[in-house]
Amino acid sequence: MTDSTQFLLKDRVTSYLQKLQDAISTSLETLDGGATFREDVWDRPGGGGGRSKILCDGKIFEKAGVNYSEVYGSSPEYLTREQPTAKEFFATGVSLVLHPHSPKIPTIHANFRYFELSDGKAWFGGGIDLTPFYLDESDVILFHTKLKATCDLHNLNYFPKFKQWADDYFLIKHRGERRGVGGIFFDQLGADSNYLEPEFSFLQNIGNTFLPAYTPIVEKHRSDSYTEDEKRWQLLRRGRYVEFNLVYDKGTVFGLETGGRIESILMSLPTLARWEYDNHPIPGSPEEVLLNVLVTPRDWTL
Amino acid sequence: MTDSTQFLLKDRVTSYLQKLQDAISTSLETLDGGATFREDVWDRPGGGGGRSKILCDGKIFEKAGVNYSEVYGSSPEYLTREQPTAKEFFATGVSLVLHPHSPKIPTIHANFRYFELSDGKAWFGGGIDLTPFYLDESDVILFHTKLKATCDLHNLNYFPKFKQWADDYFLIKHRGERRGVGGIFFDQLGADSNYLEPEFSFLQNIGNTFLPAYTPIVEKHRSDSYTEDEKRWQLLRRGRYVEFNLVYDKGTVFGLETGGRIESILMSLPTLARWEYDNHPIPGSPEEVLLNVLVTPRDWTL
Repeated sequence: MTDSTQFLLKDRVTSYLQKLQDAISTSLETLDGGATFREDVWDRPGGGGGRSKILCDGKIFEKAGVNYSEVYGSSPEYLTREQPTAKEFFATGVSLVLHPHSPKIPTIHANFRYFELSDGKAWFGGGIDLTPFYLDESDVILFHTKLKATCDLHNLNYFPKFKQWADDYFLIKHRGERRGVGGIFFDQLGADSNYLEPEFSFLQNIGNTFLPAYTPIVEKHRSDSYTEDEKRWQLLRRGRYVEFNLVYDKGTVFGLETGGRIESILMSLPTLARWEYDNHPIPGSPEEVLLNVLVTPRDWTL
Repeated sequence: MTDSTQFLLKDRVTSYLQKLQDAISTSLETLDGGATFREDVWDRPGGGGGRSKILCDGKIFEKAGVNYSEVYGSSPEYLTREQPTAKEFFATGVSLVLHPHSPKIPTIHANFRYFELSDGKAWFGGGIDLTPFYLDESDVILFHTKLKATCDLHNLNYFPKFKQWADDYFLIKHRGERRGVGGIFFDQLGADSNYLEPEFSFLQNIGNTFLPAYTPIVEKHRSDSYTEDEKRWQLLRRGRYVEFNLVYDKGTVFGLETGGRIESILMSLPTLARWEYDNHPIPGSPEEVLLNVLVTPRDWTL
């Protein structure tokens, strides 16, 4: 890839991602109907910065973060360990995590990112994954089916590969269970190519799939009632979410190592999380039904 | 050190640590006056096991864990990275974390451990550190003074060195603040010696200092009233405790990497923890007074 093409792609990617952040946050405000996003613009001392949008204590969302960032500079040790020739890096992305109040509405996370290294290598990465507290099979089927439909427009190998990647990536190794029911995860897409237009097109279509894959699930469950015990189970599962993010999540590690804005990186953590010693769901309970699919992932599409 | 001496020291250390676990848990039950410790004995597939004692929902303690473990087998990658000749390891220790209900009573953690590697190297490690939510200077002075008095019985260099080590170790790097007001931390004690009796004597005296350094603080504050806002601040600080333990704590990493019992390792996490976006204490508030000493540690002894 020539330098001039890189420059153009980089600009088009940042432009798309900024518009995606606005489109998603505007739709979520309408969906929530109770609170608005607060916006914080920040600079990174080593180069670049970002725009964080956070909504707190809404009608539906307890905490929702939709963050844009564009950072560059000397590559952190984390990157040069694998790519010694890549002295400088550029990374841009949208990262979002939505934590609803209700245990009947799943938490969701999505990330859409683009990397360039000074040795000329460039790639896309990202994914969307769903974390329900109670298993509504039709929700999970809808979610996976929408992701598959978008993947299939580009490459029939994408969905099976990226679904498996999500099942592997979101494993909380020390628990032997995943944080949720997965979705898709991909990285280094286009890293071996010098023409990244198809990958950029894919990223945009996946970005645009976020709202139609998630909002119907929220609408369906927004009026569901729940008990104190169901709320307690949600907080225990959120404890697992914290364990995954702080111990295993590469985005969190990358952010902490590259001097990203801590409050923007850790907006992914829920308002409240709970740990109980040696807690196990009652056999046959709805809590155990969920746990079983976190231990043994299923295929949700035909 | 000859093999026979190693064997004897190992036995005397495990015997001391088991008695220490019993003495501390018995005293904490009396102090709490509302709940008793549940005991779980567990085996480690690769060799060894442990005895966990957990008290939940007491009068004073929301969650208290006093764990003993004795594990051995092939060294994890974590150890052989630094010591390639140490194919086998033996590790025994008592680890305890007490999370009181009241934000006026500090959380406390202590660890007392002994390591042996198959290449003949052996050492002690450990420490005690205090995590108040509100700063009562006389508590912190009492706590540090008791630790210093015990250190000074053995070596006048110990306290200054181990106090600084705690201030360095308990730093939450990405926040630029410590999780608490420190205490002492030490590792590799005796690693360059072939006669570890003085170090074992020190470990026992430090182990025996735990109760007299902490129980007066609990007794002093057990009847203090507190507000909902003070409880909320406690939960925010507990969020930081979770960040430290999952991101930086070597004992947690060692436990997860060596296939320790997850429920025993993660008993250190509080029942409830809270994260709020971009929360900062009001200037001049008691919360800010605490935060200041977490950012800039003080000397608490003369």
